[in-house]
Order: sequence, then C-alpha cells, then structure tokens
Amino acid sequence: MRLTYHPYTLELRRTFTLATGSRTSTPAMLVEVEQDGIIGYGEASMPPYLGESQATAEAFLARVELSQADPFRWDKILDAVDHLAPGNHAAKAAVDIALHDWVGKKLGLPWHRIWGLDPEKAPVSSMTITIDTPDNIRARVKGAEGFPVLKIKLGSERDKEIVQTVREVTDVPLRVDVNQGWADREEALRMVEWLATQGVELVEQPMPKERLEDHAWLTTRSPLPIVADESVVRLSDIRKLRGAFHGINVKLMKCTGMREAYRMILLAHDLGMKVMLGCMTETSCAISAAAQLAPLVEWADLDGALLIANDPFRGATVHDGKITLPQDAGIGVERILDQ
Amino acid sequence: MRLTYHPYTLELRRTFTLATGSRTSTPAMLVEVEQDGIIGYGEASMPPYLGESQATAEAFLARVELSQADPFRWDKILDAVDHLAPGNHAAKAAVDIALHDWVGKKLGLPWHRIWGLDPEKAPVSSMTITIDTPDNIRARVKGAEGFPVLKIKLGSERDKEIVQTVREVTDVPLRVDVNQGWADREEALRMVEWLATQGVELVEQPMPKERLEDHAWLTTRSPLPIVADESVVRLSDIRKLRGAFHGINVKLMKCTGMREAYRMILLAHDLGMKVMLGCMTETSCAISAAAQLAPLVEWADLDGALLIANDPFRGATVHDGKITLPQDAGIGVERILDQ
Repeated sequence: MRLTYHPYTLELRRTFTLATGSRTSTPAMLVEVEQDGIIGYGEASMPPYLGESQATAEAFLARVELSQADPFRWDKILDAVDHLAPGNHAAKAAVDIALHDWVGKKLGLPWHRIWGLDPEKAPVSSMTITIDTPDNIRARVKGAEGFPVLKIKLGSERDKEIVQTVREVTDVPLRVDVNQGWADREEALRMVEWLATQGVELVEQPMPKERLEDHAWLTTRSPLPIVADESVVRLSDIRKLRGAFHGINVKLMKCTGMREAYRMILLAHDLGMKVMLGCMTETSCAISAAAQLAPLVEWADLDGALLIANDPFRGATVHDGKITLPQDAGIGVERILDQ
Repeated sequence: MRLTYHPYTLELRRTFTLATGSRTSTPAMLVEVEQDGIIGYGEASMPPYLGESQATAEAFLARVELSQADPFRWDKILDAVDHLAPGNHAAKAAVDIALHDWVGKKLGLPWHRIWGLDPEKAPVSSMTITIDTPDNIRARVKGAEGFPVLKIKLGSERDKEIVQTVREVTDVPLRVDVNQGWADREEALRMVEWLATQGVELVEQPMPKERLEDHAWLTTRSPLPIVADESVVRLSDIRKLRGAFHGINVKLMKCTGMREAYRMILLAHDLGMKVMLGCMTETSCAISAAAQLAPLVEWADLDGALLIANDPFRGATVHDGKITLPQDAGIGVERILDQ
C-alpha cells in the first residue's frame, strides 16, 4: 500500500470568526493510499488553534509506513499509526479516512452500509453563523435560509444582542456554541435559562474545558442539553464526562478518524449521553467520511464543506440541512479538482 | 430475504455436569437466511437452565419478518428483531449470526476482516473439565492433553479435592468457573487466595449474580481476576458491573449475537474491564461466529463444538487450544451434515 500526501489550503467563503480569533483560510493536507489500482482518499484539516500544521502533518505522515500493510488488518494499522507519536490527531485522521475509503471501495460498499446503517436516519445538519456585526449577522442568517436549524457562536459580552439579531430574521431552532466563553456557572445558568426562552435547543461547551464540576453543576440544573466540545477529544475522555454533560461533540479531526469516532458514539450512547457529529472547515472528503456515521447520532453539524470555496471533492451533500449520503463505495467521494 | 429454521439436538460427547445439574444433549435451532443465491447460517443453542427451548425459538422465529428487509441495514433489522419480544436471546442470536454470515458472504470477507482484526491475535481457548468422580476427572484431564489451559467447574463442597485431583495429572494453568456456587464472600476470598497458589489464573462468577456488592468487596481484595458470567447478559448490564468485576464473559447466546457482542467487548474495554469470549455447547456455526471476535479479547473459552458428537458444520477450529479462524467469507462455515 502506497501513501502519498500534499498540502492544500482551504479558502473560506467568508471570514470565520470565533471567540478566539478570525481567519480566511484553513491549512489542510490531502492524503491518498493506493493498492490494487484502488485509491483511498483522506484529509487532515488543521485550524491553527488546534496546534497542527502542514509541517507537523508532513513530518508525521513521513513516518507512516504502509508498504507491507494488509489493509484489512486496519485495526492494527491504525493502532500502530496512533502509537507513532502523541497528538497529530488530524494527520492520524487523514490516514484513517484514506484507509477506510480504500477498504470500503475494495468491498464495494459505502461505510454506512458496512456498519449496517440506514442513511435515512441521518439527522438534519445545522449551519453555523459566526460572530460578526449585526448587519453581517442578519445577512449571514438570510444566506442560510432553508436550513432548518442554525448554530450560533456566542461567548462574548454581546451574546443577548447576537441572539436577538438572529431572531429578528429567523425563527428556526438555534443551537448555541459558547466555545468555553462563559466564566461563571451562575451566570451560565441564567444565560441558558434565557436561551431556552429564545428557541435554542442545546448549548455547547459553555465554560472552560477542564471545569467539569462546574459543567456538572450546570448540567443538573439546565433546561437545555449541555454538550461537550473542547472537553472531549478522544475515546478515553468520555468516561470522565458522565454527569458533567448531556452529550458530546465528536469530530474526526479531533479523535483521529472514523474508527475512533464510531467507538466514541457507541460508548457515549452506552453511557447515556447523546452525540453531535461535528466538523472543522473541511473538504467534502472528511465531511463524507463523517456523514457515514450520521445515522448513528442525534445531532449533526456537518456544514464544513459549505464554508470553503475550493472543494476538490464531490461526495455527501448538505442541502437545506438534509444530509444525503453518497451511495458510492468507501467514503463515497470523487475527486473533481486537482491541486 | 427468506428465513427458515429447524430444530436440531446437539448430542454431547460426554455428560455435561454443572453445579445445577447434568445433561447429555442440548436443544438447538438451526437458522438460514437466503437471498441472491447466498445462504447465511445461524444457530440458537439453548441449555434448558436459560429458559429457552425449541418451542419458544420456533414461536419467536415465526414472528421474524425479513421478506422486505435490506440486509445491509442490518443494524435496523436487528433492532426490530430485538424489539419483537423480550428474552429469546438465543433465538435472536440465531438471526443475528445468519444475517452477519449472509452480509459477510455478500462482501466476500470473513467478519474478522470486515472488523479489521488480525486473526493471529486470538488468544488460546481453554477446554472445560466438568464436575465428576475423581477417576473421571483424571480421565477427562488426560483427554484434554495438549490444551494449554483448562477451565474447571467448581462450586461444591468438593472444590479443593477437585483442584487437587486435576493437579495430580496436569500442571497447565487453570481457570475456575464457580457458577455462583459460593455463598460467603469471606470464604470466597480464602478460596481465591488458595486457588492463586494452585496455578489458577482467574475465577468466574464466584457468588450469586445479583450480589454485586459482595463481588466488589472480593474484587478489590482478590489476587486473581474475578470475571462476571451470570451477572452479565447484555450490553446494558455492563455499566453497573464497574468495580464489581475485573472482567466479563461475553457469550453470543446470552447477548443476542455478534452485533451486541462486538459492542460489549468495546464497552468493557472502554470501562477498563477485560473480556472472556465464552460459549454454550454449540455447533461450529455459533463457535465460528464467536471466533470472528476472538482477536479482540483477552481470554477465549470456545470449546463448545468439541463437546458435541454431531456437528453439522465445519468452520473455526480449536486444536490444542489454538483457535484458527476460517478464511471463508461471513462466519466461515460449511454445512457438512444435513439434518
């Protein structure tokens, strides 16, 4: 099995603003594995605040040795890749996705069918409205018309104003992502209680990730589901979150890929937690990989490929929130743009 | 998809004796699903003490409607089968195994390869020595020569005598299955401490299944791993066993089949517990289904097909404890005897 990779820069359709900063592009790495004339596609998307870069991904991928690998022992291969070095989660996810794509193509089935899932069970996806001026927020919400649910980023002094601005132009259900932006649990509870009166259906990561006791305090009192995002990275984080959150946000780029994401979803459900399937700004490669898992989850937030202008893949689509899983084998993508 | 089934009686090579009684045969039900010219084989093995019978299995299977089913939505199919009625775990497992066999054959791969597993990682299987007279125990142990580990059934007044009898003729590591036979936790601890001096490597289900606190008391003090058997039936039982046991025994006939067994193994590992993969007296059909999962577990006890005289299948083999997974697709069995 031959592994190749090259850097790719995702050009964002609009400036992406979080509580932590703004950017107009996202560095990525596109990965291919090839054997028997079959190519498996994978992708690492690396928003800078997560600590990976094209340089770290290249250095990591240079150490991945697949030339003698039996791709159908993918569990062992991915264990070995994971043990090569700590961190490098997006780079690991790129290998995981490419290997899954290859295996699914070799089997002639998309992964949701290998997993026995009903593609019709995929929940609708939200579309994210980033922090901006009131005029721009109104324009962005109008631009997302048709989406049955929106996600808005909060976590500043302007939270109520932002929600009210959104509510001037839409009455669809909202999900709120605070990105750790609230400092005080009493204020967080008052804010959640207010949000519950504004047609908000869940709140993500209200407080700093390590404050599990404060989240547990909030979760037991909250009228809305409280969902972990920054507090959960990998499978091994889930156990300690019981009681602290109602659910978790699983993202391929955080958790090293499809294998671990699948196991995280099963574990969260086994422990009585709900699951959101999320993403970074990503091409349709990583989005289509995540979409294979969508029939298993309660909430989807797979708008990542809609946010970029130079998507080199065609695969799963998200039209007006409806996720349509490709019927093609593997992760179901076709390369439509060369680098 | 067409479902057919017929009763089959497993003739035991030797009388099987537990703390709860003896028998010379085990009622079973052989199941087939057929579509596109591919037959998937499944089996329900129903030791009477578990409450199922050929009559209950027939009544249950008569209600399973697969004629319009898309077999690649097996997750949904198996949910529906599970919800048809409570209980009927072995009958449910028969459908699950047959469906997995069909899907694997359609894909052209054995399930251990679909799951990405390395067949060489399957641990050795123990062979069970049942309760008997000292002369017969010695004969049975000699009959199991070559097995690198034996399982002995304890839980009576004669426990030390039985261990000493076994030790007269072999020095291989032993696993002890008490089948809930010990009443007192202090005595259980003294017994486990003694067993640790006799080359015993683990103890299964020392006390009655509902006594989780007593098991937790024992587990924190025991020099040997304490493994749940009767205390764990299905996936939903595992959470409450944390701290009460070091590991769990997963059996397809208890847990409704391969789908749930796979998830139980993942969950137990995620919660820090080890896993034994066990069986009933079964044909090579159910044993081969279980063997697909063997690379995932720490301990295997898959001697079930060695205990019967009229095995209608050829599949996974267990020679001198070494489990050899078939390379054929699905669960990898071939029908060699008609009913």
